Amino acid sequence: MTMPLAAVRAQLQWRYATKQFDPARTIPAETWQVLEDSLWLAPSSFGLQPWKFLVVDTPALRQELRKASWNQAQLTEASKLVVLAGRRSIDQGDIDRLIARTAELRQQPLANLDGYRKMLSGFVQGGWASKDLAAWNARQVYIALGQLLTTAAMLGIDACPMEGIDMAAYDRLLGLDGTPFTTLCSVPLGYRHASDKYATLPKVRMPREAAFERR
Amino acid sequence: MTMPLAAVRAQLQWRYATKQFDPARTIPAETWQVLEDSLWLAPSSFGLQPWKFLVVDTPALRQELRKASWNQAQLTEASKLVVLAGRRSIDQGDIDRLIARTAELRQQPLANLDGYRKMLSGFVQGGWASKDLAAWNARQVYIALGQLLTTAAMLGIDACPMEGIDMAAYDRLLGLDGTPFTTLCSVPLGYRHASDKYATLPKVRMPREAAFERR
Repeated sequence: MTMPLAAVRAQLQWRYATKQFDPARTIPAETWQVLEDSLWLAPSSFGLQPWKFLVVDTPALRQELRKASWNQAQLTEASKLVVLAGRRSIDQGDIDRLIARTAELRQQPLANLDGYRKMLSGFVQGGWASKDLAAWNARQVYIALGQLLTTAAMLGIDACPMEGIDMAAYDRLLGLDGTPFTTLCSVPLGYRHASDKYATLPKVRMPREAAFERR
Repeated sequence: MTMPLAAVRAQLQWRYATKQFDPARTIPAETWQVLEDSLWLAPSSFGLQPWKFLVVDTPALRQELRKASWNQAQLTEASKLVVLAGRRSIDQGDIDRLIARTAELRQQPLANLDGYRKMLSGFVQGGWASKDLAAWNARQVYIALGQLLTTAAMLGIDACPMEGIDMAAYDRLLGLDGTPFTTLCSVPLGYRHASDKYATLPKVRMPREAAFERR
């Protein structure tokens, strides 16, 4: 079942970076499952999924992460908090795991995927993205971020993505030091507080004709 | 009006990278408008919108872009084609334009936004993203990409995002050389062909418990 056009447009307009969450409101578990689905099922280049999603529910840890986020209250007042981390690199093991998983889920012999494996290895070792695999991975994580924010909007869930955080402190607090993953973005999710004045301000966008060119 | 949970989950599962489009099917104009809305209204860091969206309808140009895309048929067979370009940098002029636009749309005196302007300038000149502004901008474009792909899925529109393209050729063909923008991603959109066997293959994702960690 797809969604009516007017409803999609309305929810895209409704979304904003929430400054003040209502701490009394909780995202229902079944809604949160679908928000996790939106991350889990997000598209990525070659399907490599170069990410890890850290769902932080421990109040004391959220308090510590708040200190690493310019003390922004959303960290502790939003119903949920997910930190999006990206792989620091991609190695042959990551490629082999993807190929094995493909063979398993699609019930294909591994040998049938050998050409694909070689092409993928060649790209990771010598393609344009090979100059900075961490940056390439970060782009993929931002696809997942976009999918999460849009899905949240469609479900009437508010969010406030944050990049301006102390990522080294996040890595330390989340136990990511020495792992293949590093913090990229922190996303509190929940429900806007009735008194958040930013909710009703006009969205600031360049004129539509400046965003697009026709060829 | 928000969307039912089961429908959102179903559309997230329904989405896949479409290998074969039905050239006989056209995205209705009013649906395309909402897909453009999803790009235009996409979130970005500080709301800087460091992007340009090139909608390519000229058949001869799409044929040329196909050659710069490993001759993949989606370039000419999909109903629509949009190329996502990112700013090569961010300068004070970009910041000043954003501040002026904010003052205009929110009917605030420019002076009220002076602190915000200074904070933003400081971040662009010395924050973590200042080491590679093009990479930072690319991440924002990928949020817009994620929002486009998710919105398309909610509307039952198929897409095939492509990064493995000859970006220098794209820039030349689209007239982006010497402009502040450069090609990042090419996205044909339309309707899957009934004979695309990829449509019915299981989605390849890591096990759900491997995508998430709980803290």
